[in-house]
Amino acid sequence: MSDKTPSQRAQDWLSGFENALSQGQTAQATALFDTDCYWRDLVSFTWNICTQEGQNAIEAMLQARLADVQPSNFALEGEATEADGVVDAWFTFETGVSRGRGHLRLKATAQGDRAWTLLTTMTELKGFEEKKGSRRIKGAEHGAQVGRKSWLERRQDEEARLGYDEQPHVLIVGGGQGGIMLAARLRRLGVPTIVVERNEKAGDSWRKRYKTLCLHDPVWYDHLPYMPFPDDWPVFAPKDKVGDWLEMYTKVMEINYWGSTTAKKATFNEAKGEWEVVVDRAGQEVVLRPKELVFALGVSGYANVPKIAGADSFLGDQHHSSKHPGPEAYKGKKAVVLGSNNSAHDICAALWENGVDVTMVQRSSTHIAPSESLMELALGGLYSEEAVQSGIDHHKADLVFASVPYQIMHTFHIPVYDEMKKRDADLYGRLEKAGFMLDFGDDGSGLFMKYLRRGSGYYIDVGASELVANGSVKLKSHNNIERINPKSVTLTDGTELEADLLVYATGYGSMNHWLADLISPEVADRVGKVWGLGSGTTKDPGPWEGELRNMWKPTQQKQLWIHGGNLHQSRHYSQFLSLQLKARYEGLDTPVYKPAPVHHLR
Amino acid sequence: MSDKTPSQRAQDWLSGFENALSQGQTAQATALFDTDCYWRDLVSFTWNICTQEGQNAIEAMLQARLADVQPSNFALEGEATEADGVVDAWFTFETGVSRGRGHLRLKATAQGDRAWTLLTTMTELKGFEEKKGSRRIKGAEHGAQVGRKSWLERRQDEEARLGYDEQPHVLIVGGGQGGIMLAARLRRLGVPTIVVERNEKAGDSWRKRYKTLCLHDPVWYDHLPYMPFPDDWPVFAPKDKVGDWLEMYTKVMEINYWGSTTAKKATFNEAKGEWEVVVDRAGQEVVLRPKELVFALGVSGYANVPKIAGADSFLGDQHHSSKHPGPEAYKGKKAVVLGSNNSAHDICAALWENGVDVTMVQRSSTHIAPSESLMELALGGLYSEEAVQSGIDHHKADLVFASVPYQIMHTFHIPVYDEMKKRDADLYGRLEKAGFMLDFGDDGSGLFMKYLRRGSGYYIDVGASELVANGSVKLKSHNNIERINPKSVTLTDGTELEADLLVYATGYGSMNHWLADLISPEVADRVGKVWGLGSGTTKDPGPWEGELRNMWKPTQQKQLWIHGGNLHQSRHYSQFLSLQLKARYEGLDTPVYKPAPVHHLR
Repeated sequence: MSDKTPSQRAQDWLSGFENALSQGQTAQATALFDTDCYWRDLVSFTWNICTQEGQNAIEAMLQARLADVQPSNFALEGEATEADGVVDAWFTFETGVSRGRGHLRLKATAQGDRAWTLLTTMTELKGFEEKKGSRRIKGAEHGAQVGRKSWLERRQDEEARLGYDEQPHVLIVGGGQGGIMLAARLRRLGVPTIVVERNEKAGDSWRKRYKTLCLHDPVWYDHLPYMPFPDDWPVFAPKDKVGDWLEMYTKVMEINYWGSTTAKKATFNEAKGEWEVVVDRAGQEVVLRPKELVFALGVSGYANVPKIAGADSFLGDQHHSSKHPGPEAYKGKKAVVLGSNNSAHDICAALWENGVDVTMVQRSSTHIAPSESLMELALGGLYSEEAVQSGIDHHKADLVFASVPYQIMHTFHIPVYDEMKKRDADLYGRLEKAGFMLDFGDDGSGLFMKYLRRGSGYYIDVGASELVANGSVKLKSHNNIERINPKSVTLTDGTELEADLLVYATGYGSMNHWLADLISPEVADRVGKVWGLGSGTTKDPGPWEGELRNMWKPTQQKQLWIHGGNLHQSRHYSQFLSLQLKARYEGLDTPVYKPAPVHHLR
Repeated sequence: MSDKTPSQRAQDWLSGFENALSQGQTAQATALFDTDCYWRDLVSFTWNICTQEGQNAIEAMLQARLADVQPSNFALEGEATEADGVVDAWFTFETGVSRGRGHLRLKATAQGDRAWTLLTTMTELKGFEEKKGSRRIKGAEHGAQVGRKSWLERRQDEEARLGYDEQPHVLIVGGGQGGIMLAARLRRLGVPTIVVERNEKAGDSWRKRYKTLCLHDPVWYDHLPYMPFPDDWPVFAPKDKVGDWLEMYTKVMEINYWGSTTAKKATFNEAKGEWEVVVDRAGQEVVLRPKELVFALGVSGYANVPKIAGADSFLGDQHHSSKHPGPEAYKGKKAVVLGSNNSAHDICAALWENGVDVTMVQRSSTHIAPSESLMELALGGLYSEEAVQSGIDHHKADLVFASVPYQIMHTFHIPVYDEMKKRDADLYGRLEKAGFMLDFGDDGSGLFMKYLRRGSGYYIDVGASELVANGSVKLKSHNNIERINPKSVTLTDGTELEADLLVYATGYGSMNHWLADLISPEVADRVGKVWGLGSGTTKDPGPWEGELRNMWKPTQQKQLWIHGGNLHQSRHYSQFLSLQLKARYEGLDTPVYKPAPVHHLR
């Protein structure tokens, strides 16, 4: 074993694997996996996003899909490496209809090298490649052409006709970052698409948030497809700068973006196999008839506003964090912020900076991840200037990220947060002394797992924790607001706090509330809960799903898709969603392997 | 000799050169150059853009500049290569105040390896580097700060104050691509700058041109700094798409761009060492007091409209090509287009495509370069998908381009156009048969040398030449319009052509007409002719200058600069102009070696 290079070992494994696959030997192919093994596929083998865990699941998938997929041409890409007894290798491959890229982790066993994890991803459909690089269009059509139309005339014609004289193949409801990125990919793939967005302009969903907001993830994590941020972009981009970028991106990517447009009602016409979607476009009702409907309304659903006795009697301002206008109007006043996650912390800090007497009411424990530590310990290897310098740009980083099966992802994260506990022990100690309820997730796996499992329960500390620790921002933990009085709130422990402002930083409901309202409760229930892994941890009930529920893959409602997530996820997974939509647009056969069953309605 | 690799030979030369320089041995350093030798410097040694031709000029420059420049740390960058007896090498170096990148061509001589060409360029000023990559700003300032301002508030403050409460260090007159690119670089360098532009929005100068216009240069040649076009941009970008890109670029680069603003009068206040520039900003007079004034009004000056007897009597439409609205209104009518360069050909073709009976009147010979041939034979090695694939992106290509001294540049180009004559012999033959007067420049060096020497005299053929060759576009060559009648024109050969439309595709005057009007005729004369090399060829009178006159470098008028050129030049030379301006903004000593004397007034 030891006399082979990691590349030779990986190449040997790939050759053996391809050989078995080409002969239809599913058992032989499966035997190349270790007992503890995972095959994560993003569309290329399954027309789904799913992970086969263990040899039985892998062989079952191959038996169902191998004849149709016709995989071939597995080829090592770059040199494989070895660390801690695991060989890491990149490869490319093809299927009958597509090209793909994959990643392999090998372990030496008594039987020889066996796969621990395998990732297969679709990069393009044969014959339907993006017109980029050497495939790009000429632009100027040389030679004389009677009646030639200019680019501008063609764009204007398209804008006038699409949605009226011609129907889009895809309608994306929601024109935030997720909708925009997916639309950019579909544009490149030539799939007629409209994005509807209730705000006037692209970027407004960022612009309208509280004024001190900056991205909590660093710039290397946040690129949009095709057009990376310039290399002088701040590490944490301010929200209005992000807003301007999204607006510009939408324009130069030639996205058909309907601002000031609200989706009112969507109905699936089973007979015609298309949706009927009524939208209000700046006061005009338009009925759109797309084949495919995508919800891209963010990770979250409606704002959660708790019903608290006496709320109607309050004489000051009260609003959900998503409606908070910023601190200026409250200088010298008293504020109570209910909640202790990201928005609560950011809003408390901004209020304090503007001379507001502010109290945070903490109901349950929160994971605090200091930004510097998070960047250095958790993200730095993949998303940082150092990573870029060492050849790991965000394209590569996204694939590395995707290569870790969700089932074992927490084991990669726990050591990071163990280190964070040590590194930031002083802050954590002082927070606890101030009464703050801390956690690191049920199993100590920290921020990103909490995000995947429940989408809440953390604050990326950019300074507010110090204000909580030192008492500048007052804290009432183990508490809730029991009732609201005209000029104060009464907490569950009996304390009465004077208040001119009351902010509900209480998070958001499930995404599929949008489905219930826009389509029907029946369809929302058919689709079921969105997001979460089924880990059985707090707010993420089992059974285990192996992938995020309903995200970027076929749902139990025909021709209905859900897109979203943070900038990283929206960038990476829009690739796979756009390829699924393109395949359907071109009429390719797309048999979905094992559509995920629905276990939870909301 | 032959047992050393090209890299060893280059390294040995650089070591010898550095050694001589470090000891102040100018004669020894000069002796390392061949008899036939050129040292082109972009700012780093001379605070000028100039080429020293021959050993005497090189030694004189070193005697004047060496003690001040303090060059050091010459280090080979990548591997040197050898072809046709010439070693090509890249290197980095430093001066006392800056870092730089250079290029070297070595020839083996009886005395050992000697430099044939040397290029030295400034890349950044020490201590004043762009805040990019690992130097980028945080964006979110972590920790609590009382009275913190958001990015948006700071941008809005700046926009409100700059030009009113605070003066810009640099004022750029002209907000086309050149002004925008320079402003983007100055923004990165932290030099307070305003761009004034008479059009309402950035990009309008492209939008307002004739509707079929696409860039004549391919996309790889046209990138703006910092933010390359996405990889699906058309080879030849349509003008409105370029317009949108410029508008968005201006916004995301945070350029202080005053649209709808006309510069009325500029006066240099010798005592204060600053300019007083009166501008009309959307109807409001504003007086700006920048230290440095940059004209970025394009390669050309005012439109040349010939005075022709009877023009006032014409009953149809007549306008300069820059005002041509496009062909639609002239369907079924008769048009005469005076001129035979790019605009004339594009306009004739668009008119013909729209059913107009069009005649081109050719006054003098024109160089025709078929676009495909130009791309493959002339540009392909540096600016193409193949070049990108082989590691030559536009940054590298720009430097390769810059490394060829103007004195010998034509010798690099003549073989290209000899090849083009063969390859496109059929088209050329048919054009001549149709009476078209062809040329390839006085010395057969073709398009780019014509562009540098006189900025005119060519058409990049994207289809119109076929229409001329086959008679679809009628041709009257060896001719001019002698007089204009109410419904026709009379040519010098006596022919009378009926005409409903008359387009003067007659080019533009010299750039320094702008100076005469906006500042004074005296200053315009002090600065002298702009553009051209002094080659002694048609429309480029000698004496030899060695560089483009007055472009991107100090002029004979203190604190006055001229910026422009095509997209490639504006991109590349804005780097050197921005560094010259930054050095002055920071109060560095910038002694200009041999400011170019003025030989021609206009």
